Amino acid sequence: MSTKVNPDLQRERDKCTFNVTELINLIDGGEDKTAERKSREEMVLKEGLHIDDVPNEYLSHKEKYERAIKKSCGLFKLIRRLQEEDSAGMENYMAVLGGTLGSAILQDGSPLTLHYVMFIPTLMGQATVEQQAYWIGRAFNLDIIGTYAQTELGHGTFIRGLETTATYDPSTKEFVLHSPTLTSYKWWPGGLAHTANYCIVMAQLYSRGKCHGIHAFIVQLRDEETHMPLPGIKVGEIGAKLGMNGTNNGFLGFEKVRIPREHMLMKNSKILEDGTYQNAPSSKLTYGTMMFVRVVIVNDMCNYMAKAVTVATRYSAVRRQSQPKPNEPEPQILDYVTQQHKLLIGIASVHAFRLSADWIWTMYNNVTAELETGDMERLPELHALSCCLKAVTTADAADCVERCRLACGGHGYMQSSNLPIMYGLVTAACTYEGENTVLLLQTARYLVKAWQQAVGGNALTPTVAYIGRLSTGRRSPPWENTIEGIIHGFQRVAAGKIGLCVANIEKRQAAGMQYEDAWNMTSVQLASASESHCRAMVLSCYYEENEKLMKNVSPALRTVLLQLVDLYVVYWALQRVGDLLRFTSISERDIEQLQNWYEDLLTKLRPNAVGLVDAFDIRDEILHSTLGAWDGRVYERLMEEALKSPLNAQPVNDSFRKYLKPFMQGKL
Amino acid sequence: MSTKVNPDLQRERDKCTFNVTELINLIDGGEDKTAERKSREEMVLKEGLHIDDVPNEYLSHKEKYERAIKKSCGLFKLIRRLQEEDSAGMENYMAVLGGTLGSAILQDGSPLTLHYVMFIPTLMGQATVEQQAYWIGRAFNLDIIGTYAQTELGHGTFIRGLETTATYDPSTKEFVLHSPTLTSYKWWPGGLAHTANYCIVMAQLYSRGKCHGIHAFIVQLRDEETHMPLPGIKVGEIGAKLGMNGTNNGFLGFEKVRIPREHMLMKNSKILEDGTYQNAPSSKLTYGTMMFVRVVIVNDMCNYMAKAVTVATRYSAVRRQSQPKPNEPEPQILDYVTQQHKLLIGIASVHAFRLSADWIWTMYNNVTAELETGDMERLPELHALSCCLKAVTTADAADCVERCRLACGGHGYMQSSNLPIMYGLVTAACTYEGENTVLLLQTARYLVKAWQQAVGGNALTPTVAYIGRLSTGRRSPPWENTIEGIIHGFQRVAAGKIGLCVANIEKRQAAGMQYEDAWNMTSVQLASASESHCRAMVLSCYYEENEKLMKNVSPALRTVLLQLVDLYVVYWALQRVGDLLRFTSISERDIEQLQNWYEDLLTKLRPNAVGLVDAFDIRDEILHSTLGAWDGRVYERLMEEALKSPLNAQPVNDSFRKYLKPFMQGKL
Repeated sequence: MSTKVNPDLQRERDKCTFNVTELINLIDGGEDKTAERKSREEMVLKEGLHIDDVPNEYLSHKEKYERAIKKSCGLFKLIRRLQEEDSAGMENYMAVLGGTLGSAILQDGSPLTLHYVMFIPTLMGQATVEQQAYWIGRAFNLDIIGTYAQTELGHGTFIRGLETTATYDPSTKEFVLHSPTLTSYKWWPGGLAHTANYCIVMAQLYSRGKCHGIHAFIVQLRDEETHMPLPGIKVGEIGAKLGMNGTNNGFLGFEKVRIPREHMLMKNSKILEDGTYQNAPSSKLTYGTMMFVRVVIVNDMCNYMAKAVTVATRYSAVRRQSQPKPNEPEPQILDYVTQQHKLLIGIASVHAFRLSADWIWTMYNNVTAELETGDMERLPELHALSCCLKAVTTADAADCVERCRLACGGHGYMQSSNLPIMYGLVTAACTYEGENTVLLLQTARYLVKAWQQAVGGNALTPTVAYIGRLSTGRRSPPWENTIEGIIHGFQRVAAGKIGLCVANIEKRQAAGMQYEDAWNMTSVQLASASESHCRAMVLSCYYEENEKLMKNVSPALRTVLLQLVDLYVVYWALQRVGDLLRFTSISERDIEQLQNWYEDLLTKLRPNAVGLVDAFDIRDEILHSTLGAWDGRVYERLMEEALKSPLNAQPVNDSFRKYLKPFMQGKL
Repeated sequence: MSTKVNPDLQRERDKCTFNVTELINLIDGGEDKTAERKSREEMVLKEGLHIDDVPNEYLSHKEKYERAIKKSCGLFKLIRRLQEEDSAGMENYMAVLGGTLGSAILQDGSPLTLHYVMFIPTLMGQATVEQQAYWIGRAFNLDIIGTYAQTELGHGTFIRGLETTATYDPSTKEFVLHSPTLTSYKWWPGGLAHTANYCIVMAQLYSRGKCHGIHAFIVQLRDEETHMPLPGIKVGEIGAKLGMNGTNNGFLGFEKVRIPREHMLMKNSKILEDGTYQNAPSSKLTYGTMMFVRVVIVNDMCNYMAKAVTVATRYSAVRRQSQPKPNEPEPQILDYVTQQHKLLIGIASVHAFRLSADWIWTMYNNVTAELETGDMERLPELHALSCCLKAVTTADAADCVERCRLACGGHGYMQSSNLPIMYGLVTAACTYEGENTVLLLQTARYLVKAWQQAVGGNALTPTVAYIGRLSTGRRSPPWENTIEGIIHGFQRVAAGKIGLCVANIEKRQAAGMQYEDAWNMTSVQLASASESHCRAMVLSCYYEENEKLMKNVSPALRTVLLQLVDLYVVYWALQRVGDLLRFTSISERDIEQLQNWYEDLLTKLRPNAVGLVDAFDIRDEILHSTLGAWDGRVYERLMEEALKSPLNAQPVNDSFRKYLKPFMQGKL
């Protein structure tokens, strides 16, 4: 970082009112954690795996895959070395591959991600002790590469609808895996196409002529020596996608493929040798993995938002445009209030979601402790929270990344800004691990039940307790134009919407509709109620967790952290003014004051904007952006990157001689 | 279309309540226009230029360019032939290259687009008769290929900030073109990188030591025989982008390049031989091109929305998911009200924007007629309208395409759905031809002036007349829950917001702020007021133009067209409930009725959803989507397209032998 820094950017850093290092440490969770992260980054990046002569976006689809394999091998080799050094197991996997570090090297996804995100964890969660003894060592050493195949060409979120069958044949003690239709082909699993040689397959289990529902099986796909697909295995890639073109997503069909009985994962349910089916003791035990994955997603979203807003904020400090006042220089675009409006909320959102993720993770661990004592009461609540939080954070993150990209004008459209590829990765999260609308409606189902319980006089679990308080009367207390007042207002909104949904469903049922149809007719409102519930939760969580966090913080930093919370809460109040007007006693005058408050906060935060993104502490190699680098050499980098385009290697492209010239001269 | 159609899709068509052909003709503007379009499509597509052995998304960046050149030459060859047949001039250019037909062949943009969209029109608009005689014939015959270079690496929307200089040297009667800095390099022009050999360059004109502002110059870039860049010309491509990777966007720098005096376009301003500068008679004459381009953009947006919603609607009729009622089959996802909510507004928006574009174009032609008589009064109004309409339609279209893509779940993320590439093209329009926030603020400037005029007692031009009516009192008349009532409500919202902005600016000025700073502080609200103005305009325009359109329409179709208008207006009322609550006397009960009305409209339109997108009449070759084809063979097409991936040509990729196997066996 000793290169010359753009003077506008340097000026921003000079005027920052708080200690950036203090905030970096706070975000990491302590000085030692920061040091640990930095040394890990240094260790991985010094290998140079992230350096490409030709940037990824110039390669063909096939070349992208081949490069991803080469780099993945390099990365895993490094992990192997680290494991030999300090034998840290899963932690090294996650730290090096997950988060921002892995994406610095494998910018558009890795074909090995599902190996450690799904294959190994599923073995750990669903295999018997004997099965684990046999498989996990091989998987950890990467003697075999696995993936996880659940979704099918015709079946996504609705798992019961899967068509792949695994029929037990007691005469040979084997399962016969089969794809009865085209729509039953597995479709999407990462690494499945040309990388994995083993796979966990979710299939309908049949034994003695009876279907026992979805179970997991380990299937070998390719010969370990030749990598050729085994007989009866139809495997290949599903084709190019909007993003994640390094992940090698595949399809998979079975033509009556036989696997030994021992290849069913039998920790929970079993097939005995004679074909007897033994049921699982509890099906709620899979909550753990699901919660873990959702928290990982929320943290991922924070990382992408932090990257995007770092790029856009630094660029906005360097870029100058227009001349509102004659005879004055063009202002930095960061001085335009519309630009502050686009960016500062992104900074605040990173903090809000990060604290929400931590909070729900703590709650999960508490609930797990209760589970040990057999108390499952809070599981549905937790499930409902994680559904809407995943939906809202992924949707907000996608909006945030796109807003940042658009805020960089034309240059944000360049691949070298790295914003397009970030969007591709973020928007995918709106669909995978549960489509967002479906998830919102799952939360809504829980909220409707909570409402009905409250009306029935029952006590509610903590995160929906407000529904109980608010479900009885509809008269609004006086509005308070404070952070607490707004948070309370959002709870009123959520409760009010849930109440309206319940009333609408009941009205429709009274008019003769079946419950399911009444639910469907009300589902636009239900999704909206669910979103409001999540907003209320995130607002109060951000506010409260930030209060705790600030206890040991310097006054200068505390001021800024409070401003961010205020900005976040007031921003959302203004975004949801209609809801507040409908369900609280907020007045036009309150709204105008909120608007002034908001504009005032933008002005206060403006001088610290660059300091705040610097505090996300994202190294240039990880940010990988011409517009966002630490030194602000935006235009130089844009030109340097342009010159890397293979098209620029020749002054005259061959197509001139082949097509253009004969055509222009009329000979074609 | 004789292939077997998916039975669910067929059932949708069978139950359509109106005559699809009648609507097709209505959209085209008459039966003869439909026939004309269809025969043009047939004529172009029978050439087979749209057929690729390997789909575009698998090629490298360089190969994409080379294919684009090959296809562009093929397309222009066809145009040449058509011109020889019926000598139709510009019309054939536009019909074959513009709209949806060109994009069926050149899916990710063409390197020749700027030749006919900017190079030729600029010559026609700004060259003298002598210059036109020399250049236009050569350009039309494609003896030369031109482009248009305005934006620079450091300068976009703010044209006065351009740095490239053209200094007149009377001793040789030449201009010296020069790029004094890195930021002055031209950056973005399509076709500039390796395709064009001529270019119109916008540069600061200097003569006799004085700067006369931005003027246009024709500069030869490359040798006509060898295509080598001429001395002093630094030219190349700017690199890969989010989309439009066939357009060959380039950079261009000058090292004191000399061009003859006659290469300045001198229709308006002139440099005499001795260096005397003669000013333009009128600078308002360039409105024409700008209006034309904006109307083209709005129509483009309609085409993309129509494509996206056709794909998503047909897919939603084929796709089945979940099982809300036990023992019943999985419903078509189009039966979910949340899905109808995502798609039907897209269908209505196409109609709303199409009619708005026609309306503003008619208005432009009327105003032009007034111009002939020297009456320029309505030019600023027209400019203000076109700014906000461009901003709102491009933003809405981008939202619509993304919503459609997300509504297709995982499969929408596949390139073969064609939705990702559509998004890339649509979102670009939010930035080019005037960044959207900047445009909204330009409209706001006009609206604030209109408000001040109204308060001063002056009459206002028609499209802002409502501001005059509403600027005097703030008391709301009783709310009417009708289409007219909502439209009137939106006008109150726009007027109310403008009034608030004016009050805020004045308050800030009274507190000592300069006007420009007060404007900036209020700009978030100003952009919002401008958007509200545009919404009011589009709502009333759609409603009124549809009324006219329906005069000669069958009762069955009329019912559906009215439902679409209702849906559009009620949808936006519900989206902007907060605004309506603030600025009108709408009540909670009205809102609940609107919500019911909306849900009722979704139910009514649901059976005609497929018929409505069929009426956009987009041929499969143009739609180019596995999910949206006429026959609904969604899963078969997904698999067929996947098998075209070059990665699937080998069962084992070379990277296994090179990297994966040595690594897995610990030898790497």
